[in-house]
Amino acid sequence: MTCFFNDLTLLFLNAARAILSNILKRLFKNRYKNYLYIMKWTVADIAKIVEGTVIGPDDLVITAPEKIEAAQSGNITFFSNPKYEPYVYKTGASAILVNKNFDPVSEIKGSLIKVKDVYESFGKILAMFEVRPINEKIQSNLASISPSSTINKDVSIGDFVVIKKGAEIGEGTILMDQVYIGENVKIGKNTILYPGVKVYTDCIIGDNCIIHGNVIIGSDGFGFSRDEDGHFKKIPQIGNVIVEDEVEIGACTTIDRATMGSTLIKKGVKLDNLIQIGHNVVIGNHTAIAAQTGVSGSTEIGANCMIGGQTGFVGHIKVADNTMIQAQSGVAGNITEPGRKLYGYPAIDYQNYLKAFAYFKRLPEIVNRLREIEREIFK
Amino acid sequence: MTCFFNDLTLLFLNAARAILSNILKRLFKNRYKNYLYIMKWTVADIAKIVEGTVIGPDDLVITAPEKIEAAQSGNITFFSNPKYEPYVYKTGASAILVNKNFDPVSEIKGSLIKVKDVYESFGKILAMFEVRPINEKIQSNLASISPSSTINKDVSIGDFVVIKKGAEIGEGTILMDQVYIGENVKIGKNTILYPGVKVYTDCIIGDNCIIHGNVIIGSDGFGFSRDEDGHFKKIPQIGNVIVEDEVEIGACTTIDRATMGSTLIKKGVKLDNLIQIGHNVVIGNHTAIAAQTGVSGSTEIGANCMIGGQTGFVGHIKVADNTMIQAQSGVAGNITEPGRKLYGYPAIDYQNYLKAFAYFKRLPEIVNRLREIEREIFK
Amino acid sequence: MTCFFNDLTLLFLNAARAILSNILKRLFKNRYKNYLYIMKWTVADIAKIVEGTVIGPDDLVITAPEKIEAAQSGNITFFSNPKYEPYVYKTGASAILVNKNFDPVSEIKGSLIKVKDVYESFGKILAMFEVRPINEKIQSNLASISPSSTINKDVSIGDFVVIKKGAEIGEGTILMDQVYIGENVKIGKNTILYPGVKVYTDCIIGDNCIIHGNVIIGSDGFGFSRDEDGHFKKIPQIGNVIVEDEVEIGACTTIDRATMGSTLIKKGVKLDNLIQIGHNVVIGNHTAIAAQTGVSGSTEIGANCMIGGQTGFVGHIKVADNTMIQAQSGVAGNITEPGRKLYGYPAIDYQNYLKAFAYFKRLPEIVNRLREIEREIFK
Repeated sequence: MTCFFNDLTLLFLNAARAILSNILKRLFKNRYKNYLYIMKWTVADIAKIVEGTVIGPDDLVITAPEKIEAAQSGNITFFSNPKYEPYVYKTGASAILVNKNFDPVSEIKGSLIKVKDVYESFGKILAMFEVRPINEKIQSNLASISPSSTINKDVSIGDFVVIKKGAEIGEGTILMDQVYIGENVKIGKNTILYPGVKVYTDCIIGDNCIIHGNVIIGSDGFGFSRDEDGHFKKIPQIGNVIVEDEVEIGACTTIDRATMGSTLIKKGVKLDNLIQIGHNVVIGNHTAIAAQTGVSGSTEIGANCMIGGQTGFVGHIKVADNTMIQAQSGVAGNITEPGRKLYGYPAIDYQNYLKAFAYFKRLPEIVNRLREIEREIFK
Repeated sequence: MTCFFNDLTLLFLNAARAILSNILKRLFKNRYKNYLYIMKWTVADIAKIVEGTVIGPDDLVITAPEKIEAAQSGNITFFSNPKYEPYVYKTGASAILVNKNFDPVSEIKGSLIKVKDVYESFGKILAMFEVRPINEKIQSNLASISPSSTINKDVSIGDFVVIKKGAEIGEGTILMDQVYIGENVKIGKNTILYPGVKVYTDCIIGDNCIIHGNVIIGSDGFGFSRDEDGHFKKIPQIGNVIVEDEVEIGACTTIDRATMGSTLIKKGVKLDNLIQIGHNVVIGNHTAIAAQTGVSGSTEIGANCMIGGQTGFVGHIKVADNTMIQAQSGVAGNITEPGRKLYGYPAIDYQNYLKAFAYFKRLPEIVNRLREIEREIFK
Repeated sequence: MTCFFNDLTLLFLNAARAILSNILKRLFKNRYKNYLYIMKWTVADIAKIVEGTVIGPDDLVITAPEKIEAAQSGNITFFSNPKYEPYVYKTGASAILVNKNFDPVSEIKGSLIKVKDVYESFGKILAMFEVRPINEKIQSNLASISPSSTINKDVSIGDFVVIKKGAEIGEGTILMDQVYIGENVKIGKNTILYPGVKVYTDCIIGDNCIIHGNVIIGSDGFGFSRDEDGHFKKIPQIGNVIVEDEVEIGACTTIDRATMGSTLIKKGVKLDNLIQIGHNVVIGNHTAIAAQTGVSGSTEIGANCMIGGQTGFVGHIKVADNTMIQAQSGVAGNITEPGRKLYGYPAIDYQNYLKAFAYFKRLPEIVNRLREIEREIFK
């Protein structure tokens, strides 16, 4: 039931992304250089950054962006969707970003900043105010780092971090406090691991990844054989997990290592919180999966899929590219045709499910009609 | 499918709660004062505490409470629900709490303690025997505490805890071992964080909260925009999480920070284990949510709701106060009328779902009847 | 939707398990003796171990096993299922295990090793190449160990581990880095706790268990009473969790302590990742439960059950031995007859669910047929 995008994000869908992503890149670079963000700006400062024109006082101090319905003095907000226009006159915001052709019909508390593209400009502003938990020291003296690991001098390591022998950590990567890096783990550049992340032996993580708190990467796949007494015998899980570049993984998500070979999370994949990825699973490039979804062993999900929350996939199936799956669905077989939209348990065509469910709700009435007919013709 | 209340709790529903809650308050106070609980009592000690009359020996030693069907020598148990009467004569318990008007019809192994209200009295006894994992030292010398944090002298801090700059921790709060407190985090009084909890930058937690092991508070909301190539671009998540007073949060639950503003868990909310709370979600006062439920971004759940386990909520909806939702349901739209009971996927009226499902199970038979009719009239 | 067994495992089902389990026992023994595995073998070495005959060069170096469709130079793979025969001639593997009666019909890149039983032999090979994250030191000097705990000299303890007073740890057990062991916790022999596991006060874990990263054992059950204002009052949870021998618990799984008595995970149980086990639950011997399943308080699941992923169980029910439950099902009542196979929400007989769902999908058409009839007879 998780939606991928908050209102704001939706607004961005058709807005100038290159600029936002450049800001993010820059921010990301700043991040591990522990740049101190200026957290107070004047309306004039912001207008300059977004190349906007100020209507009203330009010396007001802005301390945070806020949604228009919640904004108070010191906030900057934005207005674009006409249905929010009433808030323009009610909001306590010190500044409102508006399209350059917008003219208020009554009095406004704060200043207006007129810009060419509200969403593009607001993206810049969000980034300006972003604060990340940054390790204060380049390398904590309270970490346990194997002398036989290879750590770039420009890596940031938090307190009580453990790095085992043979591990390699690339330039600009941040290992926050209480992270565990197993033997021979390889992590690329400019990746951030939040507190409590545990990466088991031999796993590989790419560049520019974001891995949230208490994620587990490389736990054993759930593989057992069963003896004549019905007792389970563990099958050694000797593979690893490979997480490619620009992947984000949500808090407490678990990704099992492969039995042999690799469990593979491809470039640009976004995983939400509390997701289970089984052994030998492959998630295709730029696929997004919402919270609490589970993917069983050896299943391959294609590229550019969007999977709703709490969805389940059986093992050993293939899901085509661009598949969209409604939350809580159960995918029980191969999906060969790309771009389908599915819903249900087991999952069927989205529209078909909705139509069938509409009649499901009316089954008592439908059965009454059936009885009526039976009375009529079998009398 | 998680039920909120164990048998015992149900029994408490109409029992004297004030007394229990006073005991808990006292206990909680003791907790961070590291009071050493006496774990062995005689029947006489307990009778005194619950103001009961002992029938039988009063010098037996009681080491633990236990359910009547499982109780052994050394246990104290209780009897009230008539259907359990056979156990009164079978149990190995050294003592049984009974209502003062109860007279056994045959021999009993242990002693009876006759009391005015069995449940009220048993609540006291449970509290007497409660043991909490308490940090042995007031402040571990193995913690990493920023000199620019503000920590009340009466805070207990475990080993390998990290507290970042600008954090504020109130009187009587317990940070157990391996907890992480990010920059500028504010935590109130008499709150306990169990081992492995991670609280990201800028989040706020109130008084008298209980936060269980490996919970994540403040991870990034799952918000992305999509560029013309279908690649996801991260939207900065610059808000925080606010957890109000008297909230309990179960193990491995994850609560995302807001995109802007705050994700808000209001006073008295109880969250079970492995729950996902999305960005900008609001959970109303005294709402209880069972394990593995997921609430998508920007959804607002009202006050005094009871939500079953593994339920999912889409984003951007409002759920009225006093709503009850059956486990595993999928809530796909606003629920405007308070006090409704819902079930299904998508969720509909509870009774309607059960009726419809009853016919769903009979669909093969129903369709046969339809065929019968068709043969009859289209012959 | 999680399947229990990967392809390979399935192959093992009827293969010589005794041998594999002996290997695992030996391996396990090696594990805490910190045996250094030889990770490079020649074809000749391996042929000797599996008592096979080499066809082709026997001096090629083997660095890892791999699935036949993915194997490259340096890999050893296996061939048995006829449908994979094409890969025998395409694979880049340096060696292929085949049945002794197999004769290739065209050229093969690597060598063949002919053996009596491919699966038995391949099991040995997987075990040969298994590498475990082993603590390099027998006891870290960066751990916080209570002087009043009892720890066998042959226990391995990682960095930043916390062991509280009264804890007892048996011979050969491995506590990996950042593990937390509460007061009076008892852990048996040859058990491994992966990084970040937290075991609350008074819990008991048996011999030969494997507990994966960030698991929580012993968090409070979700038990509350509700006062006249509808506010929840916490019921003290004074019981514990008992995990018997040979249990495996997946990453980020949470097991709540009992209100009174014990939550009980019996011998040989296998739990996947992100599972929720409520207070006072009992899981019977040798039952396997797939990822993201939730079991509500006081429910008892029998022995030798197989439970699919994302299944939910209401509280206070009993589930008979040998029950099989399809993924995502909702079990809402007692299951008294052993060996049933269930599916649905609420769960019904597996075949009945599939039949009913087949008609559910066709409801729009079925209702049209009904209208047709109504037009016909009520005209």
